[in-house]
Amino acid sequence: MLDIRVEKTTSPKPIPDKDNPLVFGTIFTDHMFVMDYEEGKGWYDPRIVPYAPISLEPSAMVFHYGQEMFEGLKAYKTEDGRTLLFRPDKNIERANNSNRRLCIPELNPEDFLQAIKAVVKMDEAWIPTKEGTSLYIRPFVIATDPFLGVRPSNTYKFMIILSPVGAYYPEGLNPVKIWIEDEYVRAVKGGIGEAKTGGNYVASLASQVKAHDEGYSQVLWLDGVHRKYIEEVGAMNIFFKINGTVVTPKLNGSILPGVTRNSCIALCREWGLPVEERQISVDEILEAAKSGAMEEVWGTGTAAVISPVGALRFEEEVMQIQDGGIGPVSHKLYDTVTGIQTGKIDDFMNWTVEVR
Amino acid sequence: MLDIRVEKTTSPKPIPDKDNPLVFGTIFTDHMFVMDYEEGKGWYDPRIVPYAPISLEPSAMVFHYGQEMFEGLKAYKTEDGRTLLFRPDKNIERANNSNRRLCIPELNPEDFLQAIKAVVKMDEAWIPTKEGTSLYIRPFVIATDPFLGVRPSNTYKFMIILSPVGAYYPEGLNPVKIWIEDEYVRAVKGGIGEAKTGGNYVASLASQVKAHDEGYSQVLWLDGVHRKYIEEVGAMNIFFKINGTVVTPKLNGSILPGVTRNSCIALCREWGLPVEERQISVDEILEAAKSGAMEEVWGTGTAAVISPVGALRFEEEVMQIQDGGIGPVSHKLYDTVTGIQTGKIDDFMNWTVEVR
Repeated sequence: MLDIRVEKTTSPKPIPDKDNPLVFGTIFTDHMFVMDYEEGKGWYDPRIVPYAPISLEPSAMVFHYGQEMFEGLKAYKTEDGRTLLFRPDKNIERANNSNRRLCIPELNPEDFLQAIKAVVKMDEAWIPTKEGTSLYIRPFVIATDPFLGVRPSNTYKFMIILSPVGAYYPEGLNPVKIWIEDEYVRAVKGGIGEAKTGGNYVASLASQVKAHDEGYSQVLWLDGVHRKYIEEVGAMNIFFKINGTVVTPKLNGSILPGVTRNSCIALCREWGLPVEERQISVDEILEAAKSGAMEEVWGTGTAAVISPVGALRFEEEVMQIQDGGIGPVSHKLYDTVTGIQTGKIDDFMNWTVEVR
Repeated sequence: MLDIRVEKTTSPKPIPDKDNPLVFGTIFTDHMFVMDYEEGKGWYDPRIVPYAPISLEPSAMVFHYGQEMFEGLKAYKTEDGRTLLFRPDKNIERANNSNRRLCIPELNPEDFLQAIKAVVKMDEAWIPTKEGTSLYIRPFVIATDPFLGVRPSNTYKFMIILSPVGAYYPEGLNPVKIWIEDEYVRAVKGGIGEAKTGGNYVASLASQVKAHDEGYSQVLWLDGVHRKYIEEVGAMNIFFKINGTVVTPKLNGSILPGVTRNSCIALCREWGLPVEERQISVDEILEAAKSGAMEEVWGTGTAAVISPVGALRFEEEVMQIQDGGIGPVSHKLYDTVTGIQTGKIDDFMNWTVEVR
């Protein structure tokens, strides 16, 4: 149990109009959670303070050696005024898995949850209520030793910042067009692909820029060894419905284990849909699209929740999915996941945690 | 040509005793170079200011998405009082190669060199003179947009900081023991391995910690596809002398193109030694070590210059090299490179640039 020190802001910012569509990740609330770490001392000085810039040495290791971990989850306001978190235990578990891979000290899971709840409670008034909006929660850890040289840092900063958000993709639930990448690689088995860390995202930028220039909004990665098997979309995991079976790449060490991915698999199984987590080659996708066996394609992620995919392009081939519309399973998953998240439907999976 | 604004420190720090062995990367000089970037405006406000912490939004993209690039080079003081840089054009060229891969805006090479010279000149008194010491120069760029979401940043900060340094390895020219890694992977073709960026270094930490625990000071990486071919040491490139021929892995897209690597190849060729840049399997290394064909092994890097390797371990096999001593080629390379760098021998390769 953390003894969280609280310093309230003396100059609160105006809360954005709840009916305005919010651009993702640009506005931050009045407060943030901060806790420091020092080798031999452990995590110390947990505090909620006014949201403000932080000061670091130019030699701080995070600027040079990429020792940084982040998570992303959301808080929702129900119609009866309760504040719900969606499966925070899964994010906390993944954060510590990332920390181990990145040689960052682990965080006590109970303390982590307490910190999320405390800072969300503090800025509860910022949670937007319009359909499709939520309060995005960004916990992250950065290495702060003022030292040039490659070794794990001895000091860290753990922070949680909050941002009221609208849809991640401006398209909303409209299907996105996805570019299957054949030149660049995001991650490889034995690397850091299953950790949520900056290095995986910067690796994806060059491809993303190329795809955007061609009119595609996201990149689908192939494995780094065979350049043949489907991995993930960087900001999302990917699902296919082929001949009545839901298929998604199995977690192989280079794919991020998404919380929404896990939730969609559980829901499909709950509904009696066959689900396979397995290796999927790009050739299988091409064939299924050509033969008409490909019924639906969608991405899953905390930011976008469910993102129907209307077209896939691999090299010179463009595959249209569902005539560019939204499939019934993607739609049911979206309605169910967001329904549970916002308290509109009964939480029959026991996934939500109330912030009291 | 940059119009560099200069703000001198009003409280200069004491300069470390030049005869004291300096720990690498812990002490920084009185000043730093800073220049900002904004989309549409380009790089602006080049300035030399007192070395001090920098202030960033907690949402600054560098903390979350790893968009960061760094370089490392050194300045040396000659016996007759001149200040020399070693092949800065190579670092500047590599910086822009990294920038392109990381979607960071490029820097004008002439401006970059001018900035290095200006800040080194300002803190020239900090260049240590004892054998094996130098002024380490760390240029780096970080993404500063206060934005959560995956895209290239629209704003950046370019900084150059300076640190008087001793030997990178406490062992000095004594041979290091190297662990050949068979579990983790540093980088893969199509990824960011040839860019100098944090993501590659954080990926190496878990293996480095494991190797240290076993008494090995560095990790030698195998390729991410076949897990079979020698790549590099993370902080160094690697060279073998087998049956009279100098062999080093060729640049394949996942290896950092080292400036010291390039210099050693050029010197060996100048001396009439056969040099091969090619694929080298770990099996070939094992066999050469067993048969006695392996004459020398050494690493090359800016920080350590030349680092003789006394032992290599792969899985359960330990290969002793040169009875754990320093080989003649490694020794001659060290003497020649450091001789040119410090002005002790004639710069017959035309590699040094004087700071006037």
